[in-house]
Amino acid sequence: MKLCRFEHEGAVRSGVVVDGDIIDLHRAAPGLAEKFQPGDTRALLNLGESFLGECRGLIAGAPAEARIPLEEATLLAPIANPSRIICSWVNYLNPAMAKLPDQPIFFSKYESAITGPGAPIRLPKIASDIVVEPEMTAVIGTAGRHIAEADALSHVAGYTIVNDVTAFSHRLQIMVGAQGPYGMAKTFDTFAPSGPWITTRDEIADPHALEVRQFLNGELRTSANTSEAVFKLPRLIAYLSGFFELQPGDLILTGSPPPNAGKPDFLSHGDVVRIEIQGLGVLENPVAPDKL
Amino acid sequence: MKLCRFEHEGAVRSGVVVDGDIIDLHRAAPGLAEKFQPGDTRALLNLGESFLGECRGLIAGAPAEARIPLEEATLLAPIANPSRIICSWVNYLNPAMAKLPDQPIFFSKYESAITGPGAPIRLPKIASDIVVEPEMTAVIGTAGRHIAEADALSHVAGYTIVNDVTAFSHRLQIMVGAQGPYGMAKTFDTFAPSGPWITTRDEIADPHALEVRQFLNGELRTSANTSEAVFKLPRLIAYLSGFFELQPGDLILTGSPPPNAGKPDFLSHGDVVRIEIQGLGVLENPVAPDKL
Repeated sequence: MKLCRFEHEGAVRSGVVVDGDIIDLHRAAPGLAEKFQPGDTRALLNLGESFLGECRGLIAGAPAEARIPLEEATLLAPIANPSRIICSWVNYLNPAMAKLPDQPIFFSKYESAITGPGAPIRLPKIASDIVVEPEMTAVIGTAGRHIAEADALSHVAGYTIVNDVTAFSHRLQIMVGAQGPYGMAKTFDTFAPSGPWITTRDEIADPHALEVRQFLNGELRTSANTSEAVFKLPRLIAYLSGFFELQPGDLILTGSPPPNAGKPDFLSHGDVVRIEIQGLGVLENPVAPDKL
Repeated sequence: MKLCRFEHEGAVRSGVVVDGDIIDLHRAAPGLAEKFQPGDTRALLNLGESFLGECRGLIAGAPAEARIPLEEATLLAPIANPSRIICSWVNYLNPAMAKLPDQPIFFSKYESAITGPGAPIRLPKIASDIVVEPEMTAVIGTAGRHIAEADALSHVAGYTIVNDVTAFSHRLQIMVGAQGPYGMAKTFDTFAPSGPWITTRDEIADPHALEVRQFLNGELRTSANTSEAVFKLPRLIAYLSGFFELQPGDLILTGSPPPNAGKPDFLSHGDVVRIEIQGLGVLENPVAPDKL
């Protein structure tokens, strides 16, 4: 099932993509508004796995008026209010690195960085050397603390694509003798394009056997497979659940494979960035100047 | 004005502390519930500066039934749903550092780390060497992007105390040739005790002229002044507003002064941590084992 958020006739809605159409969940079952507001994916996920089962029933019996052709709607980021955006740092083999970390390392983005499919990535006035990082991303569906690796994937509701856009100009802020954290290099407004939807877990047999391709203006720049990730999702989820209770709606970005050329492209106004991940769809965003 | 969140008779409420009592805002003006739900400080701040003016009128004319003795209520974190928790990294002179950064450096905490006055700081099972960092914190009241330093403080609604609790065991994850970001060392559950309330800007003539004192089990361990901060709030706010639109409810932690002994204490079960910042009140938290 492909859970989406979309805009139609000026309103933000929740739906499921089926055969080139969107089934609007609240049009299929008007009583749903008591359970979650249209567009509130975090509240939808809080209803639990059993609710995803109900959705399957709903879309099978949906009336014609609940069906909206995809081209009449605008897809939005599938979740705009995640409880946390947890990003993996250096989770793919990189020829520049002398040694791999022996533990996963994470940083975070603010919710305000999220933007949807087709929406512009804005080039910040104060930064330069903006790069694309295509990342398979897990969306947590079931809360948990101190989760065992063997149980970890059962806490995942589904998967989506997030582009972990980064300003290399602000990436490492080096002092004598110590390097600081990433700071805000990864959380400028619009630096987390995501989508096109959340593919539920039942449709992805193994999240670490997916082809990842990234194109810049139609040219292939990265081709990799999520099998190449150093730390896989069971390890990431188990490890993170030692820090805090994972919550429905948490996004866990699994890191970006290095580009084929070994070094990334810096984005320019007018570029179009396209990310394809097998089974998860296509996320495409144009590049535009900063606002103001 | 001292804006607070509190629990009373099992419900979360919003109020103003006056002379040892809390004026419950929604009891003082029942119609307020249409503007913001009790306890939703972010929604309160979204009502803008003019609403803070209205609150002053409300508390002046509050009926007796809106007045609750402080000792009958439990103070909670003054804001539980900030849009961002933005933390300054190394913003005080530290004898261990060879050189100061020439730009502010930031990291973030998740909202889930927030806890209130009196609530336990939990020692995580998976971490050790947990330290206290007392920090004067600005609460944004007015949104803004590309803010000039001269205008920056007008975007502040008020100030509070946040204890930037950190697990030194997870602080720097060092690889050969590169040091990673802080990772999750600062965002374990309960690692952002805050409060006791938000002191509005009009009561703090200069946020960088406040005494900071931190006690462990009654013994003074840090005594400093916010004047010693390397980057002051006007610079921090102006700089951050280049990255994203600052939003009402954003917390900006201004960094922690080094402890008097030069190195920090590691917390143990049963310890009591007390932070006093001039004009902002007292934030005290016991230390307890991890849950589960």
